[in-house]
Amino acid sequence: MRDAGKYDGILGVMVALACVQRLHNRGERLPFSVEVVAFADEEGLRFGTTFLGSSVYAGVFEEELLSLEDHYGVTLREAVRAFGGDPDALEGDGRRRGDLLGYLEVHIEQGPVLEQEDLPVGVVSAVSGQSRVGVGFTGEAGHVGTVPMGSRRDALCAAAEFVVEVERAARREPGSVATVGEISSLPGASNVISGEAKLSLDVRHPEDAARERLCDQLEARAREIAACRGCESEWRVRQQTGAVAMDPELCALLERAVEETGTPARRLSSGAGHDAMQVAVLAPVAILFVRCERGISHNPAESVDTDDVGAAIEVVRNLLSLVSRRVEPGGAQEGE
Amino acid sequence: MRDAGKYDGILGVMVALACVQRLHNRGERLPFSVEVVAFADEEGLRFGTTFLGSSVYAGVFEEELLSLEDHYGVTLREAVRAFGGDPDALEGDGRRRGDLLGYLEVHIEQGPVLEQEDLPVGVVSAVSGQSRVGVGFTGEAGHVGTVPMGSRRDALCAAAEFVVEVERAARREPGSVATVGEISSLPGASNVISGEAKLSLDVRHPEDAARERLCDQLEARAREIAACRGCESEWRVRQQTGAVAMDPELCALLERAVEETGTPARRLSSGAGHDAMQVAVLAPVAILFVRCERGISHNPAESVDTDDVGAAIEVVRNLLSLVSRRVEPGGAQEGE
Repeated sequence: MRDAGKYDGILGVMVALACVQRLHNRGERLPFSVEVVAFADEEGLRFGTTFLGSSVYAGVFEEELLSLEDHYGVTLREAVRAFGGDPDALEGDGRRRGDLLGYLEVHIEQGPVLEQEDLPVGVVSAVSGQSRVGVGFTGEAGHVGTVPMGSRRDALCAAAEFVVEVERAARREPGSVATVGEISSLPGASNVISGEAKLSLDVRHPEDAARERLCDQLEARAREIAACRGCESEWRVRQQTGAVAMDPELCALLERAVEETGTPARRLSSGAGHDAMQVAVLAPVAILFVRCERGISHNPAESVDTDDVGAAIEVVRNLLSLVSRRVEPGGAQEGE
Repeated sequence: MRDAGKYDGILGVMVALACVQRLHNRGERLPFSVEVVAFADEEGLRFGTTFLGSSVYAGVFEEELLSLEDHYGVTLREAVRAFGGDPDALEGDGRRRGDLLGYLEVHIEQGPVLEQEDLPVGVVSAVSGQSRVGVGFTGEAGHVGTVPMGSRRDALCAAAEFVVEVERAARREPGSVATVGEISSLPGASNVISGEAKLSLDVRHPEDAARERLCDQLEARAREIAACRGCESEWRVRQQTGAVAMDPELCALLERAVEETGTPARRLSSGAGHDAMQVAVLAPVAILFVRCERGISHNPAESVDTDDVGAAIEVVRNLLSLVSRRVEPGGAQEGE
């Protein structure tokens, strides 16, 4: 993330390390081994494809992604090699299915729900699916002083109308969020009518059918807006990820682990994508959310409370105990 | 101009050179000297201030402009010096008022009027005034998946609503054009709600009062749009130029010069700014427009017909004769 916060992603790794440290300090041994994993580029910022690290871990990485280029023309293949990795091993480098008892991700909520309900942590029920689309409008560049308003084919006006429409449509569809975060206009001079405008569209919903319906609506609106203005529209789906439900059993244990700390276990869905979505193909997964100040994330103002982090560590410890009891009903014994 | 056409500006210089060449070839001498002038950066692209060359010529250049920086941080002072010029002489380097009999600018129309009326050339009555404004909206960045639609302060949505409003307002105000050509959103990532959006606004009208009214309306709308969304708006006037009427006497002669070529003299106003606006402070000015294919300008597709250029050269020759007769009623004699 550009200009981001310092908890998104990192917090989960630090909480996991703190738990392992605590086990170590107390000399506690579990009847299973605990692995702490930290995944690279979940956001997909550098190569435009998300879940880069976790897709390898989950064994779903596709070799063709190695040819993707970053902003400077460096391919993913080159970047992995420069880092000391073997790009050709990535496709076969995943964990085996059934290898893991479960996967827990601790993450800041990145939204306002837990704060609004005054809860330190919450249990994720499902992660929303997302569609990422590149939308373009092509009109005709011209002189801003001489082409009458009625004779224009202004690509940026078409794009602006679409941005307003995206917001309106998402407000009408309960549970959905839809966002245009990037926009550009060409040639991009104050005295030239825009001949081309491009924007990014991100649509999310916990139900895939609702998300697909919203995308279809917006695609049709982009075409209509363009047609009314004598412009052309382009709709390029860059990525689609279905909603992912968490594992019911692991979630139930996680709820108990929360309740054992004395706070009610609030269930909530996640509008943000998480690496757990990838890992879900090989193991039962669950996500614990930590309250996030004012729901602000992807922003340097991102903040969490130390007490809430303490609560999260407590919950993870409880979960490890609950899983231990399940694995070895007689009680936790040595393991690695 | 970035990615512009090859006639905007240049055509007038070439027509002037062709006229002088023709006078020379025929050994014709006029009772006054003819100067061909070519002005630098009328568009204001490099230093963000228009009429750079002609403002010096007209004696209205202001020394403080020398500190303006281009995209790479090079000041105007440095650029003039690197070019072999003396930046400190610019302020006093203008022509003296009364020094010139008149100033004629030949320019492509950059609009569709002459083509629609099937005329090779036209006579400009006035040049529209223009306002250039930098408009900004500040909201709050956040995660696109987690901040509910109703809790957002999306700066780009505010900007988009404003762009649509600019178009609507200009359509309601006859004779006006208003354009947003540049737009940017920060942080500018597909998965981050826009925290800040900036755009360029250009408003033109042949009547200053109407232009000012439209600007005031739009400024108020920017404030309202921001307020409704819990955002803040910024309105920074970068440049304002009043409308400039052409010299009635020189225009009347130019009309006769057109009519002598056998075509009716169509009068039209110019929505584009021209160096004649600067020179108007020291001499009577007129502008001859040349038909422009499909009205397209500031675009590589900019095109003029060779026959129309021939007509323009003919008109300028006629005008020189008419002025000669006026200067020395007995007929054209030697001059330099």
